[in-house]
Amino acid sequence: MMKVYFIQTGKTSEKHVADGVEQYVARIRRSIPFETITVPAVRNSRAMPAEEVKKREGQAIMSVIPSDSYVILLDERGTEYSTTEFASFMRRSLSGTRRNICFVSGGAWGFSQEAYGRADMKLSLSKLTFPHQLVRLLFMEQLYRVLTLIEGKPYHHE
Amino acid sequence: MMKVYFIQTGKTSEKHVADGVEQYVARIRRSIPFETITVPAVRNSRAMPAEEVKKREGQAIMSVIPSDSYVILLDERGTEYSTTEFASFMRRSLSGTRRNICFVSGGAWGFSQEAYGRADMKLSLSKLTFPHQLVRLLFMEQLYRVLTLIEGKPYHHE
Repeated sequence: MMKVYFIQTGKTSEKHVADGVEQYVARIRRSIPFETITVPAVRNSRAMPAEEVKKREGQAIMSVIPSDSYVILLDERGTEYSTTEFASFMRRSLSGTRRNICFVSGGAWGFSQEAYGRADMKLSLSKLTFPHQLVRLLFMEQLYRVLTLIEGKPYHHE
Repeated sequence: MMKVYFIQTGKTSEKHVADGVEQYVARIRRSIPFETITVPAVRNSRAMPAEEVKKREGQAIMSVIPSDSYVILLDERGTEYSTTEFASFMRRSLSGTRRNICFVSGGAWGFSQEAYGRADMKLSLSKLTFPHQLVRLLFMEQLYRVLTLIEGKPYHHE
């Protein structure tokens, strides 16, 4: 069965981000089969060149991408959609294919060349650079939002 | 003395947003004179046409904008900067002028024509539509980030 995955590097240590993410993930799961996979961040990365960190984290990401997945990297240099355009994209993706959809959010240093090579698409949430943990919250909110649009449900306000 | 203001409509009821905003505001205040002004959201707005809500909220916003302010509306249809471009803009704004800088975030329905008329600039944080409360968190993080760039300070990670 087709499933939507969100792969992230390192646990969410910022409590306000984790609290928000949890709320949206619960709502997303009412609409679609959805799973978050966390690969460990590289340890002692401060003593290591950024390229080496990205390479190791990239390998960890590769190893957990489910087979037969359409892979979308969340990347500042990717395509920028409006919410309506993202909803159209997700509507097509959820209905037209039996492949998994796999969103990948990188670590603090971004993606390795290997990860870029595996990507079917790059998606940008903003031209601005946000902390990679905050990106998780932005993504989850937006995925929840487009699912309400696709299903014609009201957006749940607190 | 020149000050940076953030004007928002309605209190921040989402706890995860309020927690994150508080963290960034404390850091921003170590760099610049910064103040958040909250105008009340219109009550019983569900029974009211959106235009009426926007008009009333717009009037409340107008009434609190400090005199001699450069007014920047946070608006999806505004100019989209990269973080580097936003840092350049803020560097110029903080050094070149003795006017206040006043960022304004609208209510759930957006801005009135009157508010658009008073704006010196419209700034977009993303093409995507985010909840107006979450926009506060995005803005505060980004303002903190550009201040670290301007001052050449390291970005504080939790």
